[in-house]
Amino acid sequence: MSATATAAPTARVGIVGGGQLARMSHAAATGLGIEVHVLDAPGAPAAAAGARLVAGDAGRLDDLVRLASRVDVVTFDHEHADPAALRALVDRGVAVRPGPAIKRLAQDKLHARSVLGTELGMPVPAFARVDDAGDVAAFAAAHGWPVVLKAITGGYDGRGVRIAATPHEAEGALAALGRPALAEAHVAIDTELSVLVARAAGTGETRAYPVVETLQRDGICHETVLPARVEPDVAACARALGLALAEAIELEGLLAVELFVSGGGLLVNELALRPHNSGHVTLDGCVTSQFEQHLRAVLGWPLGATRAIAPAAAMVNVLGPADGSDPGTRVAQALAVQGAHVHLYGKAPRPGRKLGHVTALGHDADAALHAARAAAHTLEGRR
Amino acid sequence: MSATATAAPTARVGIVGGGQLARMSHAAATGLGIEVHVLDAPGAPAAAAGARLVAGDAGRLDDLVRLASRVDVVTFDHEHADPAALRALVDRGVAVRPGPAIKRLAQDKLHARSVLGTELGMPVPAFARVDDAGDVAAFAAAHGWPVVLKAITGGYDGRGVRIAATPHEAEGALAALGRPALAEAHVAIDTELSVLVARAAGTGETRAYPVVETLQRDGICHETVLPARVEPDVAACARALGLALAEAIELEGLLAVELFVSGGGLLVNELALRPHNSGHVTLDGCVTSQFEQHLRAVLGWPLGATRAIAPAAAMVNVLGPADGSDPGTRVAQALAVQGAHVHLYGKAPRPGRKLGHVTALGHDADAALHAARAAAHTLEGRR
Repeated sequence: MSATATAAPTARVGIVGGGQLARMSHAAATGLGIEVHVLDAPGAPAAAAGARLVAGDAGRLDDLVRLASRVDVVTFDHEHADPAALRALVDRGVAVRPGPAIKRLAQDKLHARSVLGTELGMPVPAFARVDDAGDVAAFAAAHGWPVVLKAITGGYDGRGVRIAATPHEAEGALAALGRPALAEAHVAIDTELSVLVARAAGTGETRAYPVVETLQRDGICHETVLPARVEPDVAACARALGLALAEAIELEGLLAVELFVSGGGLLVNELALRPHNSGHVTLDGCVTSQFEQHLRAVLGWPLGATRAIAPAAAMVNVLGPADGSDPGTRVAQALAVQGAHVHLYGKAPRPGRKLGHVTALGHDADAALHAARAAAHTLEGRR
Repeated sequence: MSATATAAPTARVGIVGGGQLARMSHAAATGLGIEVHVLDAPGAPAAAAGARLVAGDAGRLDDLVRLASRVDVVTFDHEHADPAALRALVDRGVAVRPGPAIKRLAQDKLHARSVLGTELGMPVPAFARVDDAGDVAAFAAAHGWPVVLKAITGGYDGRGVRIAATPHEAEGALAALGRPALAEAHVAIDTELSVLVARAAGTGETRAYPVVETLQRDGICHETVLPARVEPDVAACARALGLALAEAIELEGLLAVELFVSGGGLLVNELALRPHNSGHVTLDGCVTSQFEQHLRAVLGWPLGATRAIAPAAAMVNVLGPADGSDPGTRVAQALAVQGAHVHLYGKAPRPGRKLGHVTALGHDADAALHAARAAAHTLEGRR
């Protein structure tokens, strides 16, 4: 038995973080001949699926340098890479996409608000930097109580967010979040949307996906529907904001813009500079998945078509059940739901932990959601 | 940095052979939490993409036993496993799906003709076992010249097939093919079709895909169109033959039935007892790909929906160019073809070698074929 001769990879992509996003990127990379290397701890979901592992930490420059030495371009699975280390990497000539300055829009909420709201004039909720409860009270005097308080860095998936209805609550919230914090006007949310936009390095080719409707639970995007059930002009405006933002920041890679529909208008909420939970619905619902698109964008390759392949598609997260059981033990039952696509992340079960998701197509949003929920709830042991 | 805790696999599947079919099966397995182990040489395409490698040979019982010891069920990437070794494996209590008796239908052409034509009464070309040129002449006296001569074992992708127009040519063909051989009447072929059918172990649940039209080149399925461009009654009859065959042989796994449309009627040509080149079009063209369906079938899990997700889908093979260049070096250009899905196998380039394929959807067969060809020909450096 002699070893089989293999082709050289078409490209090598390094991903900072080897979680489920990197895992699904690896799956998308295989057919394109792209070799994926991930920087993470052994056993990371992407490594378990076959991505090459660079054992290390996103906060350590040495580890980032080791990753970079193996690949053509460095990109991301999360927002936690150390900004100074990323800048040092760029200084050494490494192609980091998106670059540290763009990445900061997802790492520093106050900076993001300033760029989007003040510099670019995009619609955002009223905001201010607050250092103490007095600042919060002054903000509330202008914009009303309650006030939304957010940690400036480190928050995600609903963590790092508090709602304060009184100065006393503001005091407690700031103690928990750290100071300074970001204060935002509390807005009435009719619907939440997400716009995914890819922009290719080098060429600047830009493509937006159909607008996704996100259904939140406990501050986490829990279910999505594509296309969003909103008026065409709202969807068109959301998509336009996403495209304009990608162009303004000279994006290299993939961007998810989370938006609120509030009183008929749109407000930009937060950004992710990587594949995003709200884009999982593109995996089986659009011609090109967000994972393939992300790889194409950071490599400067032509982007893929983003159109939906069915009248409606839905995605439902699979969370770890309260009893600690593993949804993987129920995968065969879940597959009895016709048309459900099960995507497990290979992570050890823990109550409330995101362990996978299910997508489904349908002739309308209800049908797609119904199928995706049926399979997801079966995986969670809820039916 | 501590290792990340991972979930236990939902199932472990062993595949005899780690080629491109196993590689695409591994990709389909990841989201279902299935761990794939392949028996092959180091560097095999599936292992390069992350499937676990059992280094060894499909012809050696010891190696098959090592594979079996790691998994819940053993299945196949090719038809070359040693029949006696497979029977020994079954005798040891290993779940081999499909089992050796079914697998023989793809390994022994004379046996397959006897079972299909004689035992099951299915339409097949006239056939006979021939040991010498005299036998061929006798066969030709009944069915006319030319006669198609096939090696009884070992032939695939057009290898092991000769057409003899005279007794002298028959002599030469038998010398090349080995004796005895299979003689078949030469039939006028209007169209070639393939029907993919899955049948689940244990439950017997059976599902057929829409009928695929295969366009051959040099005896190899080179392009496919789904659904086939034939009259509805022809497609219905082909599908029915596939379902009947799966039931008759008590299939456990996936079956591809290659058929000729000849003079308006159908003739069963050959069988594959595994995912098949003619089923690659299901990867991006049907709700459930043949690779996921195969895994579900051998595990006895519920089968997935087989319906097409677009009016038409097409697949075009990517072959190694005559100049020895690697199609992977042209993947970025090929992706400029909108809607083309590129699937490279990671194999070292060699002129004429199957190195990948492209799929595309379309509003009709021509549109889908046009896009898939444009990308495939770009990969091959032909445009």
